[in-house]
Amino acid sequence: MRITVLAGGVGAARFLRGLRRAAPEAEITVIGNTGDDITLFGLRVCPDLDTVMYTLGGGINEDQGWGRDSETHRIRAELAAYGASPDWFTLGDRDFATHILRSQLLADGQPLSAVTEVLCRRWQPGVRLLPMSDDPVETHVVLAGSGEGRVVHFQEWWVRMHAETPAARIIASGADRARPAPGVLDAVDEADVVLFPPSNPVVSIGTILAVPGIRAAVAAKTVAGVSPIIGGSPVRGMADACLAAIGVDTSAAAVAAHYGPELIDGWLVDDQDKAVGDDPDLAGIEVRALPLLMRDLPATTAIARAALDLAFELRGARR
Amino acid sequence: MRITVLAGGVGAARFLRGLRRAAPEAEITVIGNTGDDITLFGLRVCPDLDTVMYTLGGGINEDQGWGRDSETHRIRAELAAYGASPDWFTLGDRDFATHILRSQLLADGQPLSAVTEVLCRRWQPGVRLLPMSDDPVETHVVLAGSGEGRVVHFQEWWVRMHAETPAARIIASGADRARPAPGVLDAVDEADVVLFPPSNPVVSIGTILAVPGIRAAVAAKTVAGVSPIIGGSPVRGMADACLAAIGVDTSAAAVAAHYGPELIDGWLVDDQDKAVGDDPDLAGIEVRALPLLMRDLPATTAIARAALDLAFELRGARR
Repeated sequence: MRITVLAGGVGAARFLRGLRRAAPEAEITVIGNTGDDITLFGLRVCPDLDTVMYTLGGGINEDQGWGRDSETHRIRAELAAYGASPDWFTLGDRDFATHILRSQLLADGQPLSAVTEVLCRRWQPGVRLLPMSDDPVETHVVLAGSGEGRVVHFQEWWVRMHAETPAARIIASGADRARPAPGVLDAVDEADVVLFPPSNPVVSIGTILAVPGIRAAVAAKTVAGVSPIIGGSPVRGMADACLAAIGVDTSAAAVAAHYGPELIDGWLVDDQDKAVGDDPDLAGIEVRALPLLMRDLPATTAIARAALDLAFELRGARR
Repeated sequence: MRITVLAGGVGAARFLRGLRRAAPEAEITVIGNTGDDITLFGLRVCPDLDTVMYTLGGGINEDQGWGRDSETHRIRAELAAYGASPDWFTLGDRDFATHILRSQLLADGQPLSAVTEVLCRRWQPGVRLLPMSDDPVETHVVLAGSGEGRVVHFQEWWVRMHAETPAARIIASGADRARPAPGVLDAVDEADVVLFPPSNPVVSIGTILAVPGIRAAVAAKTVAGVSPIIGGSPVRGMADACLAAIGVDTSAAAVAAHYGPELIDGWLVDDQDKAVGDDPDLAGIEVRALPLLMRDLPATTAIARAALDLAFELRGARR
C-alpha cells in the first residue's frame, strides 16, 4: 500500500505518528512544506521538515510539539550577549546542530532533498520525507491594518507578531518558479491514496499545492483530508488568521469548499461539525464525522485509520 | 605609549593579560595569527583570535587555556549522532555561538577584521585586536615519516595527530598573496615598541611575519621577545615539532638566532637559560634572564614589564 501525505508541522507530524500505526505495512511518503523555511544567523532552518523528522524519530519536545527534547538554550543566550538579531525565534542547542549540518551540506552544493535524506538517516522516521521543492520558496505576508503594505517573512508574522496584525495577502514567494523536488510527483502519481492531515490549508498544504505540477498530480488521485478546524476554531495555531487573508471562513465546511471537489474526495470533520455533511456547497465531497482531537496516540491512530478507510472506499467507488 | 604585539594563542593571551596590567595606560594593538583558522561544519573558527578575545574578556576556560568557561558540548554530541565529521576538533556550545555569528557576518561580506571588531564589542578585551590579514591564510603541514608527502591542515596535525608524525614542511598557504589587514602596518609603524610574547615562533609569529609587508615593518622597530622555550622544552604546546620542521633547535638561543638581530633587539630567557647571553650567534641581541613561567598574574605581569623595560631601554639606546 502506498500512501502520500502533504504535511505541515505539528498537526501533520502527530497525524503521521497515528498513520504509521494505522498502516504499519504501508509505504508512506511525506511531502513537506518548506515555505516556512528561514535563514537565521546564516543557518537554514526548516521548521516543518524538522518537526516531522523529530516527531517520527523520537526526538521531539512532546509538550511543545516542535523543537528537540531535553533542550537547552546556551547558544541563544550567547548570540543575545553579542547583540545578534533576530531574538524572537527560539532555537535550542540540539536543534542548532541540525541547522548547522544542513547549512554545511547545502553550502557544499547538495540539494535540500538530499540533505533531508542525510538527516533522516539518523532519525529513521519510518516514512520517506521529501521537501516539496529543492528550490527556495518563502512564505511572505503583506500586512494590513497598522502595518499596511509592509511585507514580512511568515515566521516574523507568526512568531514575533503572533499573527495579531492582520494579513492582507499571503504570498508563497518563489513558488511559481519552483520545481517539485525529485520524487515528489512520482510519489503522488504512484500513491494509492493521498491524505491531507490537519495542517494549515493556506501556509502548509496551500504552499505545497502552489508548486507547479503538484496540484494537478494530487487532483488526479483519491484524496481524503482531515479538517484542521473544529467547531469554528483551529485545533492548533492561528489558521484563522491565514484563512481570513484568503477570504475563507474558519469552519470545517469552508476549508473543504476552499479545496473543492476537484481536489479532495473525502473530508473528515469532528462530531460537533457533523452538519457540514449536509452543506450543499460540498457536493462531490464525502464528509464523515468522528472525534477529531488527536489527544493521544490511540485517538490519533483512529483518525488516521478513518482517513485511510474513507480514501480507499472512495477510490474503490471511483473505479 | 603605543605597544604592538604579534600574538598566537594561549601563551600570547596570558602574556597580554600581564601586559595590560604592566602598562594600564598604554594603547595596545594585538596582531593575531589567523593561520590556525579552519572551517568546521561550514563555520569559520579562528582559534588564536578567540583565545585572545576570551582570555582578555574574561570568558576563557582558565584550566584549559582555550575555549569558553562553563562550557557544555551538546552540539558536538548531536553532530556525532548525525555521523558528521570531523570528530577530532572540540567545539563547545558557547564557543559555537561565536563561530555561528562570525560565519554569518563573513557570509554577509564583512571582512574578518570588521567581524573581529563586532565580536570584541561584547568582550571588551582592553586591546585593539586585529587579524594579521583579512585574506584567508591556512597553515598546512607536509608530513614526513609514515605519512610522507601527505598534506594536512595544521589543526589536523596538531589536534588529531598530536604532531606525532613529523612534519617535513610547514606552509603558510595563501600568505604570499595575503595583504595585512587594515590597520596592521600602521599599528606597527606607529608603535613605540613591538613585543613578541612566548608564542610559537613557526606557526604563530612566523605565520604573521609571512604576510608580505609585516616583517619589514616590524624589523624597522625596536622589538623585544619572550622565549617560548625554557630549558630546551616548549613551555606549552609542541613548538619543538614545528621547530624541527624548519631545522631549528628547541632552545631559547636557537629561536632567538632564528629571528636574528635584524628582526629582534631584545630577548628574555628563563634564569635556567642564562648562558644564552654569552652565545656568540646572538651578537646584536640583548639577552636578559628572569623567571619566565607565567604561573599567575603577578608573575606574568613581571615578565611583561621586563619585556617592556627591555624594549624601551633598547629603543632609547638606538636613538
